[in-house]
Amino acid sequence: MIVLKLKSITISLLLNVFTILLVFNVQAQNHPKLNLTKAGVAKIRAELGKVPLFDASLAVIKEEVDAEIALGIFVPIPKDFSGGYTHERHKRNFLILQKAGVLFQILEDEKYAIYIRDMFMAYAELYPKLPVHPQERSYARGKLFWQCLNDSNWLVYTSQAYDCIYDWLSKKERKHLEKKLFIPFANFISEGNPQFFNRVHNHSTWGNVAVGMIALVMDNDDLLQKALYGLKTDNLEVGMKDNDGGFIKVEGQKVGFFANLDEPFSPDGYYTEGPYYQRYAMYPFLIFAQALQNVKPEFKIFEYKDSVLLKSVTTLINLSDSDGNFFPINDGQKGMSYYSRELVTALDIAYLFGGENPELLSIAEKQGKVTVDDAGLEVALGLKEGKALPFIKKSLELTDGPKGDQGGLAIIRKDGLELVFKYAAQGLSHGHYDKLSYSLYTNGNELVQDYGLARFVNIEQKGGGNYLKENTTWAKQTIAHNTLVQDETSHFKGEYEIGSQFASKKYFLDISNPNIQIASAKEINAYKGTELHRTMAMIKDESLTYPYVLDIMRVTSDSVHQYDLPFYYLGQLMQTNFKYNSPKVLQQLGEKNGYQHLFEEGKAKISQENSTLNWMSNDKFYTLTAITAENDEIIFTRIGANDPEFNLRRDPGMIIRKKGVKDALFVSIIEPHGTYSPVSEFAVNAYSAIDKMTVLLNDEAYTVIEIRFKNETSKVIAIANLDNSENSKHKLTIADTIYQWSGPYYSK
Amino acid sequence: MIVLKLKSITISLLLNVFTILLVFNVQAQNHPKLNLTKAGVAKIRAELGKVPLFDASLAVIKEEVDAEIALGIFVPIPKDFSGGYTHERHKRNFLILQKAGVLFQILEDEKYAIYIRDMFMAYAELYPKLPVHPQERSYARGKLFWQCLNDSNWLVYTSQAYDCIYDWLSKKERKHLEKKLFIPFANFISEGNPQFFNRVHNHSTWGNVAVGMIALVMDNDDLLQKALYGLKTDNLEVGMKDNDGGFIKVEGQKVGFFANLDEPFSPDGYYTEGPYYQRYAMYPFLIFAQALQNVKPEFKIFEYKDSVLLKSVTTLINLSDSDGNFFPINDGQKGMSYYSRELVTALDIAYLFGGENPELLSIAEKQGKVTVDDAGLEVALGLKEGKALPFIKKSLELTDGPKGDQGGLAIIRKDGLELVFKYAAQGLSHGHYDKLSYSLYTNGNELVQDYGLARFVNIEQKGGGNYLKENTTWAKQTIAHNTLVQDETSHFKGEYEIGSQFASKKYFLDISNPNIQIASAKEINAYKGTELHRTMAMIKDESLTYPYVLDIMRVTSDSVHQYDLPFYYLGQLMQTNFKYNSPKVLQQLGEKNGYQHLFEEGKAKISQENSTLNWMSNDKFYTLTAITAENDEIIFTRIGANDPEFNLRRDPGMIIRKKGVKDALFVSIIEPHGTYSPVSEFAVNAYSAIDKMTVLLNDEAYTVIEIRFKNETSKVIAIANLDNSENSKHKLTIADTIYQWSGPYYSK
Repeated sequence: MIVLKLKSITISLLLNVFTILLVFNVQAQNHPKLNLTKAGVAKIRAELGKVPLFDASLAVIKEEVDAEIALGIFVPIPKDFSGGYTHERHKRNFLILQKAGVLFQILEDEKYAIYIRDMFMAYAELYPKLPVHPQERSYARGKLFWQCLNDSNWLVYTSQAYDCIYDWLSKKERKHLEKKLFIPFANFISEGNPQFFNRVHNHSTWGNVAVGMIALVMDNDDLLQKALYGLKTDNLEVGMKDNDGGFIKVEGQKVGFFANLDEPFSPDGYYTEGPYYQRYAMYPFLIFAQALQNVKPEFKIFEYKDSVLLKSVTTLINLSDSDGNFFPINDGQKGMSYYSRELVTALDIAYLFGGENPELLSIAEKQGKVTVDDAGLEVALGLKEGKALPFIKKSLELTDGPKGDQGGLAIIRKDGLELVFKYAAQGLSHGHYDKLSYSLYTNGNELVQDYGLARFVNIEQKGGGNYLKENTTWAKQTIAHNTLVQDETSHFKGEYEIGSQFASKKYFLDISNPNIQIASAKEINAYKGTELHRTMAMIKDESLTYPYVLDIMRVTSDSVHQYDLPFYYLGQLMQTNFKYNSPKVLQQLGEKNGYQHLFEEGKAKISQENSTLNWMSNDKFYTLTAITAENDEIIFTRIGANDPEFNLRRDPGMIIRKKGVKDALFVSIIEPHGTYSPVSEFAVNAYSAIDKMTVLLNDEAYTVIEIRFKNETSKVIAIANLDNSENSKHKLTIADTIYQWSGPYYSK
Repeated sequence: MIVLKLKSITISLLLNVFTILLVFNVQAQNHPKLNLTKAGVAKIRAELGKVPLFDASLAVIKEEVDAEIALGIFVPIPKDFSGGYTHERHKRNFLILQKAGVLFQILEDEKYAIYIRDMFMAYAELYPKLPVHPQERSYARGKLFWQCLNDSNWLVYTSQAYDCIYDWLSKKERKHLEKKLFIPFANFISEGNPQFFNRVHNHSTWGNVAVGMIALVMDNDDLLQKALYGLKTDNLEVGMKDNDGGFIKVEGQKVGFFANLDEPFSPDGYYTEGPYYQRYAMYPFLIFAQALQNVKPEFKIFEYKDSVLLKSVTTLINLSDSDGNFFPINDGQKGMSYYSRELVTALDIAYLFGGENPELLSIAEKQGKVTVDDAGLEVALGLKEGKALPFIKKSLELTDGPKGDQGGLAIIRKDGLELVFKYAAQGLSHGHYDKLSYSLYTNGNELVQDYGLARFVNIEQKGGGNYLKENTTWAKQTIAHNTLVQDETSHFKGEYEIGSQFASKKYFLDISNPNIQIASAKEINAYKGTELHRTMAMIKDESLTYPYVLDIMRVTSDSVHQYDLPFYYLGQLMQTNFKYNSPKVLQQLGEKNGYQHLFEEGKAKISQENSTLNWMSNDKFYTLTAITAENDEIIFTRIGANDPEFNLRRDPGMIIRKKGVKDALFVSIIEPHGTYSPVSEFAVNAYSAIDKMTVLLNDEAYTVIEIRFKNETSKVIAIANLDNSENSKHKLTIADTIYQWSGPYYSK
């Protein structure tokens, strides 16, 4: 790799590099070697002042580190949760140390090395005296932080700083630091916490990588083996769980870095916990892969599992809306995006080690910064040379599961409208009970929301910045999502042990025609004896301005139930075509499984065939048109009941309820149709374009829906419910009209 | 004026202009003369293709008008409320007609004249047959629209179109149009509706201007006299009210355009209804002033009342937040801004006729368009020539009342924080009962909100786009505002007849020191026997990053009452320093006067001396610290009770309540102090900088507050409650400390 890079620089520079290498080799010095390399540093020094984005990124970290050096060194006795002083101080320390290391290498100013050494010495003084952290919430308490996870963050970053000053330190200093700090630190988060280290989880990825990074710096093969393959013995019981309710050990579980690559990543590079955690895990995955590639190229880590690490970066970008914010599926905090520092690192590394994909450059350009290392330099050079191509996010499917056979996610895009349809696996301990749920975005704005997590990450005022109990009682529950709830009970009874065993099954997917992109999936395990079959299509009709989303949720069961289909629209209700009662007093909708967090703001007994909800969101008009039947109920809800700490957002929702039936068919269309300007005060196309929706047929084998529009066009969509073969031929006669097609669906 | 303009253009152009003038004079043609002039048109034609912003603005209207011409002419029989088809169609017609007139003049393409003539002919055919509009809600129903107001809009715009094709039409055509359409139209909205025309109100401004504009085109002095001075007899009873509850006639009321300039505008150019309506009225005021200046320069309209019309434009810009959105005081719809078409026109006219203030150019640049007429050309030329200077919004006071003696508005700005403190008059029928209320903005975002109106302007789904009943039952009530409510009753019992008689009184104002800007006002009529005295200061301490707002509301009464001080923060509650009860069931807080629209979400009995509310809004942290006393109550509220149509926003609030007392002192600080990034997940300065606030003294003569900060600095603010003279000397001894100062307040 390095030789290839060198081709592009000048001969004089080459000579220069070799001279430097020579000098260093004479002294048998071979650091840095992880994320900065000696050749990389030489190239960076040669390009300094010539590559705008790199220079700007360097200036930013220089200013930041210089300011911290001016403030002095603070290594307080650990005490606080995240958001509190000691937590934030130690976090800041490791981030600054890593940057100081880079600055030392690039700028050759000893003050950075001194700062790192002195800080390390302070840690080496403190660490041996530390008991486990006083906060008791974690299943794996750290020493510097309340959980080993954060201790591992610390070591991942500080290993890089150590690598940068390794050769500058005296042998005695190195010995001291390794004996007092690095080796005990690595031992504590591995042997000392097998319940943390020997798992398949983003926690253990950080743990494995922390140990692996320091192993590579110190050339410690024992630690490296643990990092890669886990602890040989751990005495953990199968079925143990952590404080988030996630499994610690399951039968036959492989462990270590490779296992954490094998298990949570699907062949498409989708990480089963979801994009928020994938982003979090990207940093250790990529930073360690880069280090491993540089130090132990024989592992060919970037080719591992069909290059899954490289794929995962593109996948993650595809898991973001038009503004770059990740879809907040499972425990995802809204607002996290590809602008995060983890994604800057991951993207730069993927660019350097993944064949320099020019589409990544346009994302780097938006990020507006690069990592200050070998990878960042290449990205900045690529941009300087005008190589960037737009990263165009298309519709795609991402399979879930190590082998890609545990359902997946369909992301369907058209004209700024983005539908995220989830039929994936549980997603480890950060998964929500939301089989066949969906969320919808328009131009980067949430329109039909996934609630995301109930947590304010690192905001100490809110439960120490940790998961709030409403994450379990609300955010994970099925009713918090846009999917079907039977008898006010969550999927798999909300039990992780059950949910972890099953994934939904894709029934069919066709995104080949931009005017009808359609995905269909089935879920047979969420409720015993009940099958859920949902088909979602994004349709663009020539005669309409905007695409719309058709949603067909078909439920069949062996017994009688109540079915609720919630719809969490964001915005202000404008109008309904039905009457409803409005209670003077707001009461909770139910007793448990999330229902206790919903207020009932209105209820309608339905008598009309189509029920509509017209609303405005971000100055645009939308309508939900649902096919309803006599005895259906529509309930308006507001999140926030039994929420004394104001941990939840007071967002609206609407539930369509069908009671006392075995089977049910929910059909609706979500339709953007108009705009409002508060400046011109013009309302354009404030009403739905739909005249009438009808179920033409719904039996075991077929579901056929007709949509008639006010402009006198119409559309018929048919689903073959039992046969998803692409080649099967179907023929139906309904009211003298013959419908003939092949494949699982018909549309005309 | 025109001669001055001509100086800057070339000699050849001058000759050209005179030639054109000559040709026209020979034919005794003298139109257009209102907003386009013959000389202006000549200059525009000469500059075409050379002035980017003008050319762009012209291209936009050309595209718009051409598209409408392609669609054809639609003059439907009036039927709908605003938001409905016939309303929006007739509205679109008058906007397009005005633009088509301009295009005809500039581009000399007859198709525009033909379009206007044909449309006018269709109206001349329809109008004589029309009864009053079928919608019965208005006190002054129009014929084309549900209210005369919109009919007047129509005539203001179409007069301009008529002016543009006047000379092109045959005498016979003109006679026909005037007889069938324009004269009956002008008569209907004047003589036909004296209750509309003979008022002081934005409605009658539109009415007066409509009649005045068509009078100027037709050179009809009778109509012009009515426009300027109103109808001589109207047979209206004193005390009559319109459907919004506003007075139609008050004793001794002058009427007509000049009266509408005299009365609602203060000498500072503040329009008593508030900026939303000022913006609405700006168009007719300025467009007619321009026409009058061009046709009847002897009126010297722009010099009238110390150039109040020119001042009002700058005032209106100052009444907007950092993003240009108007503060939504009184009946203001949020989102209305200086980007509105009315402000583009007003600003361009003010630039041309007001000495070409270069600061206006920078606003025009943000607007990104100019009016396509004489004024717009000058603005675009000014920008092209690089004359623009930044418009820097400073702190300022705007007096209210025709003579500036009816209280006012203090707008205090510092480092992106903007405080709007209102101690103005009632504001005619669009006023709210909110004496001494305030709202607060940070960098263009609402932080402590004024609710604004309860209406969705032109959105038909919401009550035909008209005022909703919640505007009266909620938005106008005192409890909907950040000011004091006595005994759950609105100021002046919520009665317009009483409220209209009084204004608050400024007590003192000092904005000379950027580190403490302070305003103080008293209200003695809102509640009989009770005096409210509020002092608000924006303070920037050197040792703190952000400025903060100190709020001292002092209440003294001759009898025992309950006092509520609401605080409508926007964002999510993070933490309080007190315990409160959270009801499982949400009930309305009270029975009437707006209280019936609040749910009680929590209640605390206070036992601590300082009560704090820490919240997050737009990724920034804020704290309200209030001095509280035993027996105080704090109530958390949520807007939305008794709101079956979902007409209100479900926003949070907090009320500090003091019960069973004659006098009360509410002291609090609102303090921005930190930030959160959902991308880096760093929370910086999440907690208040305040350690303790204390009342050192509160008696008839003085109120003294001490604020101690965690950084061990402190501050003392004293207010002389009885003597606001700037020269009086004061001396106080409190706990051995001597405070000596002159003027109404002390700060150190």
